[in-house]
Formats: sequence, C-alpha cells, structure tokens
Amino acid sequence: MTANHLLGPLFTDLYELTMAAVYFNRRLLNAATFSLFIRDYPSGRKYFVAAGLQDALEELESLSFSSDELAYLRETGLFSSDFLSFLKKFRFTGSVFAMPEGSIFFANEPILEVTAPLIEAQIVETFLLNTVGFQTMIASKAARCVHVAAGRPLIDFSLRRTQGHDAGMKVARSTYLAGFVGTSNVLAGREYGIPLSGTMAHSFVQAFSSELEAFSAFAETFPDSSVFLIDTYDTIAGAREAVKVALEMKKKGHSLLGVRLDSGDMVRLSREVHKIFGAAGLSEVKIFASSGFDEFKIEKVVEAGAQIDAFGVGTNIGVSADAPFIDIVYKMVRCDRGDVRKLSPGKVTLAGEKQVFRDCDENGTYRSDTIGLRSDTLNDRLLLLEPVMKNGRLTRPHPSLESIREQFGRNFNALADSFKALNTAATYPVDISPRLQRLQENL
Amino acid sequence: MTANHLLGPLFTDLYELTMAAVYFNRRLLNAATFSLFIRDYPSGRKYFVAAGLQDALEELESLSFSSDELAYLRETGLFSSDFLSFLKKFRFTGSVFAMPEGSIFFANEPILEVTAPLIEAQIVETFLLNTVGFQTMIASKAARCVHVAAGRPLIDFSLRRTQGHDAGMKVARSTYLAGFVGTSNVLAGREYGIPLSGTMAHSFVQAFSSELEAFSAFAETFPDSSVFLIDTYDTIAGAREAVKVALEMKKKGHSLLGVRLDSGDMVRLSREVHKIFGAAGLSEVKIFASSGFDEFKIEKVVEAGAQIDAFGVGTNIGVSADAPFIDIVYKMVRCDRGDVRKLSPGKVTLAGEKQVFRDCDENGTYRSDTIGLRSDTLNDRLLLLEPVMKNGRLTRPHPSLESIREQFGRNFNALADSFKALNTAATYPVDISPRLQRLQENL
Repeated sequence: MTANHLLGPLFTDLYELTMAAVYFNRRLLNAATFSLFIRDYPSGRKYFVAAGLQDALEELESLSFSSDELAYLRETGLFSSDFLSFLKKFRFTGSVFAMPEGSIFFANEPILEVTAPLIEAQIVETFLLNTVGFQTMIASKAARCVHVAAGRPLIDFSLRRTQGHDAGMKVARSTYLAGFVGTSNVLAGREYGIPLSGTMAHSFVQAFSSELEAFSAFAETFPDSSVFLIDTYDTIAGAREAVKVALEMKKKGHSLLGVRLDSGDMVRLSREVHKIFGAAGLSEVKIFASSGFDEFKIEKVVEAGAQIDAFGVGTNIGVSADAPFIDIVYKMVRCDRGDVRKLSPGKVTLAGEKQVFRDCDENGTYRSDTIGLRSDTLNDRLLLLEPVMKNGRLTRPHPSLESIREQFGRNFNALADSFKALNTAATYPVDISPRLQRLQENL
Repeated sequence: MTANHLLGPLFTDLYELTMAAVYFNRRLLNAATFSLFIRDYPSGRKYFVAAGLQDALEELESLSFSSDELAYLRETGLFSSDFLSFLKKFRFTGSVFAMPEGSIFFANEPILEVTAPLIEAQIVETFLLNTVGFQTMIASKAARCVHVAAGRPLIDFSLRRTQGHDAGMKVARSTYLAGFVGTSNVLAGREYGIPLSGTMAHSFVQAFSSELEAFSAFAETFPDSSVFLIDTYDTIAGAREAVKVALEMKKKGHSLLGVRLDSGDMVRLSREVHKIFGAAGLSEVKIFASSGFDEFKIEKVVEAGAQIDAFGVGTNIGVSADAPFIDIVYKMVRCDRGDVRKLSPGKVTLAGEKQVFRDCDENGTYRSDTIGLRSDTLNDRLLLLEPVMKNGRLTRPHPSLESIREQFGRNFNALADSFKALNTAATYPVDISPRLQRLQENL
C-alpha cells in the first residue's frame, strides 16, 4: 500500500551513510541533538501548520537495515565490513521532542528535536525533512484556503496532478487535517478514513448523446447523491438541462445534491445558475465549483458574491503552487563537544536543545512565542514541544486523524485573524529567551 | 519498497468509479479512446521530455481489485453488488499507443492514447495523469539544466525537499533519464542502478573540533573518494585547510577528489578556490557547487566564468519550482458514438485517434511535427506514438533506464538549440493534418 508503508534506511542521501562510516571509524558514538525548523516564510505566509509527525515516528520506530539493503551497500564498495556489521544491528534508540500535528508554529521555531547517538541522529535527516516538510507545507496552504472559504466546505481534488503517488496520499491527509471536509482520492479514503467526494467528468457527459441523457443516467444510479457537471458544452444551457432532471428526481421522491461548475467566470455563472435553480423551486441544489481554485481565487470569488456552496480544490493546493517548497532544515545544535552552531552566510543556526514557549491571553488567544532553552522555566506558557519518543519507543499512541483535525480547529481559532490575511498578514511576535541568547553569544 | 510497488485501482478519483457504475448499469461497455496530452507550455519552456511510461504500463498490466479493496468500496454504500461483482473480474484489456520515454515532444501532441472498453479507459485516468505528468515535468526541467551546464556533470540532490517519498524516487530516475550523472538518493541507486554521489554535511564538520580534523578523519575513511565541504565557517579559510589535508593525502599516494561550495558568491568563490588549489599544485581537485541551483543559476554562473566542475542540483529541480505542475489532461476523443470533442471555454480538445508525425532534415534534426489521424499516411516521417500494449499485454519488454538515457541524448541532439534557450526559445512548429482538421470541423 502507498500509505504507511515503510521506506527503510536507504531512503536517505548517500552522505548520511558516508558521514556515519567516519563517525564509526572514529568512535564518535555519543549523543547529539538535531533541530528541525523552517528558516523563513514563503512569500505572503505568516504561520505554519505542523503535519507529518506520525509518519516520521513510524519510520524511526522501525528503522533497520535488511540483509538485502546491506548487500546493496556492500556492492557500492564504499563501506567496510566492520561498518556494515555495525549497521546490521542499527536501530533508532533516541528521543524525540516534537509539536503535535495540527500545531500552529512560526519561522525558526523547532518543530522537532532528535537526541540520539550521532550516527542515528544523522542518518534520519533526509526522511525527516522530506516527510515533515511536505506535509507541513500542504497543511499550511490548506489552512489558508479554509480561512478565506469562511465556512464553505473544501474538498481535495488534486490527486491527478500531485507530484507523485505519495504526495497524492499526503495531500489528502494534510488538507483534511487542516479543515478540508473530504477528498476525491479513494485510496486516501480507505487508508485514512477521509470522507470521499466526486461524481462525474466531462467524458461522462460526452459518452451520452445529450447532457439530458447523461444526467438522467447518473440520477438513475445515484438518485440521492448526484452532482451534475454542467459546463461540458455551455454552463447555462447545462443548468437548464440539470433542472429538468432534478424536477424528475423530485417527482420520484429523490433530490439532486448539486451541480458543478468547472470553467468560465465563476462569479457570474454561479449567480445565474443559482437563479435558475431558485426559479425552478430547487434552491436546495448546491453549487459546487472547481476550476483552478487556491486561497487567492477563493477569496476573490467569495468577496465578489459568488453563489458557491462548496469548492473542489486541486492542483494549486496539491503542489502548493505559489510556494512549492519550504526552507526546512535539520541542524546539529549539540554534540559531545557541547552546543554548536553553523555560521555559513545566510544559514546561521541557534545552538542548544530548545523549547518553544507560547504566551496566551485569558481567552486562549495566542499572544507571542519565546524560543528558549529546554531547561528554561517561563511561567504560564504553553510548551509546544512534547516528548513523543524515548529510547526509540513512542511515549504514547498516535492521536487519530479526527482528533488532530479537531485540535487543529481549536488551535486555528486561537490565532488572531490579523496573522491570517493572505498578503497583508502581521508577523507573529517570536523572541529568544535571555539564556538562549547568551548561549549563542558565548559560542 | 517505494519504487515499483503497485498502487492498485483505489489510487483514483472517486468519480472514475461512480461514472463506471453508471456505464455498467447502462451497459456502455464498448471501446473508447482517451488521449493524454499537455495543453500548453509552462512559462519559458518550449519542449517536453516524455517520462513515466514504464510505471504507467506496469500499473495497467497488473490492475485488479483485491477483496479488501472491494470490501472498502462496499462500505462506502455507493455501489451495487452487481457492479462490485463486475469489478472483481476487472482487468485492463485495452491497447496503448505511446511515445517512448526520453522522447522530445510539444504542447497538444498526444503522449499516450488508450483504447479500451469505456470503464477500463476511464478508471485509469487519475494514475496515468499523475504518473506520466510528474515524471515528464521533471525530465523536462532536468533537460534544461543539462543544456545550460554544457557538459558539466549534474547530480540530483533533491531528496530531502521533494514533495513526498515517491517524488524523491521519480526525480532521481527522471533527472538521470534526461542526462544527470547521478543522485544522492541511495534507494534510487539501488532501485534504478543510478550512480550515487555524496560525502559530508555541515554537521560533520561541526562534529569535530576543527575543519582540519574533520577533513583528515574523512580522508582516513575515504582516501580516494573524498569531497570536502568547505563553507561551514569561511569558504576561503576552509579551502586552505582542505589544501593541507590534500597534500597529506598526496604524500600517501591518494588524492582529494574535490571540494564543495554550498553558500556565498559562487563565481568569485569558485575562482578563488580554484586559484588556491592551483597554487598548491592540486589543480586536479574538482570544485563541486550546490546552493539553490536551477537552470537559470547554472547558466548565470557558467556565463560569468565560474570555475565549477560539477553541480549538485536540489530543491528547485526536485519540485520544478518555477512550474510545479503542468497542464496535462486525459480526454475522451472517441467513444461508441464516434469521435468526440469537448468545447468548454479554454479547454477545447481534438477529436479522433491520433498519431504524431515528425519531419527531420537530412542530419536527423527535427524540423516540424504534424498531429494527424492515426490513419493518416505522411511520407518520410517518424511516427512518435508506438503500440506499447495490446489486449492488456506489453508488446515488448521495457527498455533499460540506461538505453532510455542514451536515446534521450540522441533525441536532444536532434532538437536545435534555438528551441532550448531558457527564456527566449523559438516555438517549434506543430501543425494539424488536413484530415484531422476536417474531422474537427465536421463535429
């Protein structure tokens, strides 16, 4: 299966293994801490939504080299027998602090910190970045759509254009986590229990000699769950044909669920179609729209008074088209030489094991965050990083996707709207604790 | 395993199955033809490189519903027992015409056409679009990099930032197919036989008390395959430390393979580092660069005279950052009612089963293409679409990745440079055959 299958330790950059070989030869086996964080916001964004933790932890828990995998590494000619014997017994035995999925967080805040023997902490870099980075990027984009849709349901339609198969699955999960109500992706419905949505394509309408016949045929098989696609030839003419079939359905005690618009001027067409159904006494028929929507287009049509009840959201969200990657990094912040930082131009990191402290007002609304040392004590703050793995074992079961989604809803409500505007959002205040600051200066 | 694992028929949009249920009820079981093509070029691009066919065909060949998959569909409550029984016996029994992987093609040209009983042809839409679309997009982007690198080797470093796991695997394969020389992705090395590359990260340098010690430790384990990363603290100082270790290595009969620059002004730094190594009698040491490269940045530094021998190319290529999706579609062009076309605004399609005819000059250079009916006869043209599957069975074994890569090299040579410029490329001439044109007018 696509979802939840394990990648194994070869899903990594070669240099993780060559570095490990040197650490092994030099017996650099003591613990180190690495911090996973996003350096900066993509253009226009001012918050992130954490996602991907469950996949990351499942991979860590099961990490080991099979004999086939070791045979391949031997074939490369790069590694000694001693090192390969060491890898044979390799397991992840470290500890992980992380923000729960669905947390709201900000640039430079660690989302996850790994403390483990250096080789273990290093080898897991690539898949942690890949897994947490992509899902977090999509959940963050989805939350923006949910915000501007202002209560109108959003459905993930992106599967055909996601960047590969795994992306298709993770987009379904990450958008649902961030408040979407369903997906067209049947496998994601099965794997994650996400509600499914979808009815017909243009080819369906074309397969019949008329729209009327196509709609009637569909209604016959799905008398209570039909959504007719009405733009194959002409949207307004299609709406009138849909009305005819909807009236027939009504006579038989059923009802048309909705119609879908997939091209043209969404504001004008949705209003006209709404009128046509209203005039026919069918105002209960919902209008779905799906045509290149992202948070910008949703906001625009909603503000212009479109009569759209729900949006199918595809490609632009599924690939995060305006920001198709985030600057997520995994940096060593402590090793057996002590706390360390990197000083490459533009890539300076904060040394030390950390915690993120959140100050909330009396209503629970987020006020500001402080990135501090894990050993800092700040009164009356939420601690965002929680111990989720100890000695390579989960400290608790994974929360269900439904409970993550509900918690996300509460978290998102606690973030003031001023930080959610699409292009003009305020920057949420994040500072550094005095002790963390002092540590940097002393290095 | 990530690569080559099969997705199964639930990796689809729900509407493929609801449409199928109606076709089943209405006994619309005759053959239809669907055409897979890209409607338009992303900004600045003027050609595409076909990729993903092997994955697509493997999926088609094995497509069937397991009892678990059918049980899930039953649970949705959407489908009749009769239809589920029909799905139990479902196999793909159709024919496929397709361009071989590594083909150069252009907007609106069909890359692949499926002719199969309507339900079969419809159900495979989602994964065909996902699989062929993503790999084609990445191969096309990679070819642009290969062109401007003008012979300098390129290595895929994108795994940590690709959009999920499958994308990481397919980026390694698609970039290699289009002329990259290797990847950092160990699993792709194993699955596809792609040469591996990679040595050390900044954390490695930081794990030692000095760069000198870090480089020496690495050279001890990898005396003939070391590439030192020299920008952790200061690139020029790092180069001088690397020289010291390289001279020690030379004394022992080994040699430093290269150094890697990962931040700062690549033109200036590469030239200075080149001088430093030259002055030390170490001009054989290669300079690798890896810092946000894409085709634009490669072209810029090469034209500015950077002394860079090879590029590590990461995120920007791995997500096709400037064009993270392509407008790839799968449209019904013929059904038992005859040839059909869609007329939605901006989404008009060409009816009929097609072939792409390519005219070449006496040196084999591509001159122009004609999209025609499959039944057209045009003299002395290459036929780009080949019969690759008949009655659900491959007509021939999959070509090896190496042979695809070599064929791509020949194809790319046959495309004149005027079509390859990054921003100012000419538009390759593609016309429509008179018979195909007449068919559209008659519908």
